[in-house]
Amino acid sequence: MNMVNTQVRLAARPVGLPGDGDWTVTEERLPALETGQVLVRTLYVSIDPAMRGWMRGTPSYLPPLGLGDVMRAWTIGMVEDSRNTLFAEGEIVTGMLGVQRYAVTDGRGVTKIDPAEGPVSAHLGVLGVPGLSAYIGMLDIGRPREGETVVVSAAAGAVGNVAGQLARIHGCRVIGVVGGQEKCRHVVEDLGFDAAVDRRTEDVAEALRRHAPQGVDVYFDNVGGEVLDAAVRSLARGGRVVLCGAVSQYNSENGVGGLPGYISLLINRARMEGFLVFDHADRYPEARARLREWVKEGSLKVVEDVVPGRVVDFPRLLLRQFDGGNTGKLLLRVED
Amino acid sequence: MNMVNTQVRLAARPVGLPGDGDWTVTEERLPALETGQVLVRTLYVSIDPAMRGWMRGTPSYLPPLGLGDVMRAWTIGMVEDSRNTLFAEGEIVTGMLGVQRYAVTDGRGVTKIDPAEGPVSAHLGVLGVPGLSAYIGMLDIGRPREGETVVVSAAAGAVGNVAGQLARIHGCRVIGVVGGQEKCRHVVEDLGFDAAVDRRTEDVAEALRRHAPQGVDVYFDNVGGEVLDAAVRSLARGGRVVLCGAVSQYNSENGVGGLPGYISLLINRARMEGFLVFDHADRYPEARARLREWVKEGSLKVVEDVVPGRVVDFPRLLLRQFDGGNTGKLLLRVED
Repeated sequence: MNMVNTQVRLAARPVGLPGDGDWTVTEERLPALETGQVLVRTLYVSIDPAMRGWMRGTPSYLPPLGLGDVMRAWTIGMVEDSRNTLFAEGEIVTGMLGVQRYAVTDGRGVTKIDPAEGPVSAHLGVLGVPGLSAYIGMLDIGRPREGETVVVSAAAGAVGNVAGQLARIHGCRVIGVVGGQEKCRHVVEDLGFDAAVDRRTEDVAEALRRHAPQGVDVYFDNVGGEVLDAAVRSLARGGRVVLCGAVSQYNSENGVGGLPGYISLLINRARMEGFLVFDHADRYPEARARLREWVKEGSLKVVEDVVPGRVVDFPRLLLRQFDGGNTGKLLLRVED
Repeated sequence: MNMVNTQVRLAARPVGLPGDGDWTVTEERLPALETGQVLVRTLYVSIDPAMRGWMRGTPSYLPPLGLGDVMRAWTIGMVEDSRNTLFAEGEIVTGMLGVQRYAVTDGRGVTKIDPAEGPVSAHLGVLGVPGLSAYIGMLDIGRPREGETVVVSAAAGAVGNVAGQLARIHGCRVIGVVGGQEKCRHVVEDLGFDAAVDRRTEDVAEALRRHAPQGVDVYFDNVGGEVLDAAVRSLARGGRVVLCGAVSQYNSENGVGGLPGYISLLINRARMEGFLVFDHADRYPEARARLREWVKEGSLKVVEDVVPGRVVDFPRLLLRQFDGGNTGKLLLRVED
């Protein structure tokens, strides 16, 4: 082959928000495919809050990314060439193929997508890790019952919008905590939430007392920090707190903020539980089937923020993930 | 009747540790029994950390005690006189009959104890609220599995000693966190724990790393504060934290300390859950039967700290509950 690949690589461990100096862009000629290999052209790159954690030097649920490595990312791509009998040219696939124009893979961890079933980008959003996280977290961990009050933070985000809609579909009263008036409008008017709290201008604890005078039965946490603490203090007896993420803390160098109100868990006989969606892979088929069904019948709205660009636009888009600038699932659609 | 009752009454809401000025002692002639009433002479008064909470003006799982009320307490007594067909003179009973020499009750919430089954004082300890709390908290909420590592704080206390022994009986490696070298010796040598940490002289976080290098699977918390935080940070993947009490915080006027390490729950997909034993009354018969069986076969040691005295000694003994001066279930045995 004589094709050139463009790759975004981690150059340094960021301190605070990742800056220009933390990245390098390399251009290199693609090698000839070996037996078993597949060449995938990137169509979409998923931008996720978890990426900040992958950039640290410490192991978590995945090994740390090495300096100089292609930035890890979930992508969707098209098979351009294949020396692997499981994949054929023209097929659409998804996997953790990285922030690069082309990926060469042996196909492990790569799955096919049927474009006839709907927009392929849904496999990075409502049918991908964010949607599955919302499903497992809300339904398996949070277990909302009809008539209960459910609060979701980062409710306009990729996970939060699905989590809140799932609670609505299950007959709950849903309150979204978001940043900004436009997102308040969005979750109530577009997504059918019962109320919204703007964490930028409102006292979240006071607002939750007002919107949930009987207390919060399920709190789905995507942000950590003060919003988590306010929600924990607002729990109803037997409440449940689902720890899905802590985006407010990911760029902090001083460690994660505490939880002064944890004693509410004792007083209210409440449960707080963290989970990682990858531990629940046995639930994916059921979750995907039900999510797809709700999307099809129109009860679950798909919210995507698709930004057209090139792979080199990735660092800028990643920052947007942290400044609250996106609504729904943030995706880079790679254009030539 | 011409008998005089001695009663310890709440005179003021304590600030910090309850002091002399927070109590009054009254002596008053007992009224004649009305139909349905029972006169009970107090034999044992249970001293419990939860008493500090009852003295506050704020409602919790029980209504707040009024100023001037007889101090609330679990007791064991003997029926001295009865105008209630359900109770006969000479029977031994237990109930929340208060810190007083005699109680007049309509029998509601009062249950009989069969002295033939063993020492009656066990009904305030291993077969009473402390033992039931340990049973429900450790087995139903903590759910230890054979071979797991379990940490219990206030492990020499009324709840902690039973909780740790239950984990041992279920094949776990048990580490007790206690205050002082004598209690370290006690939980290891007398109760069969595998290790002990002296929170007064050791760095608890460091000690847990050493004693539980693979992480803590179940942490049974009786104290809150820094010990809780250290244990949460030491959790293994899928760990469980049982919130049973927060004795380190009960006398605090500045609110309860935070939980800086809560993010460990997210990282380790762990669960932290508060419970109140009274919500699980349906489990009492099974719990009591099994606890009694373990006591009988000798695998569950009964540890009581029985102090003979008069009801007016109650305020002094309550302080002992908070200064770490007792081992096992603290009881006042009322002598004339």
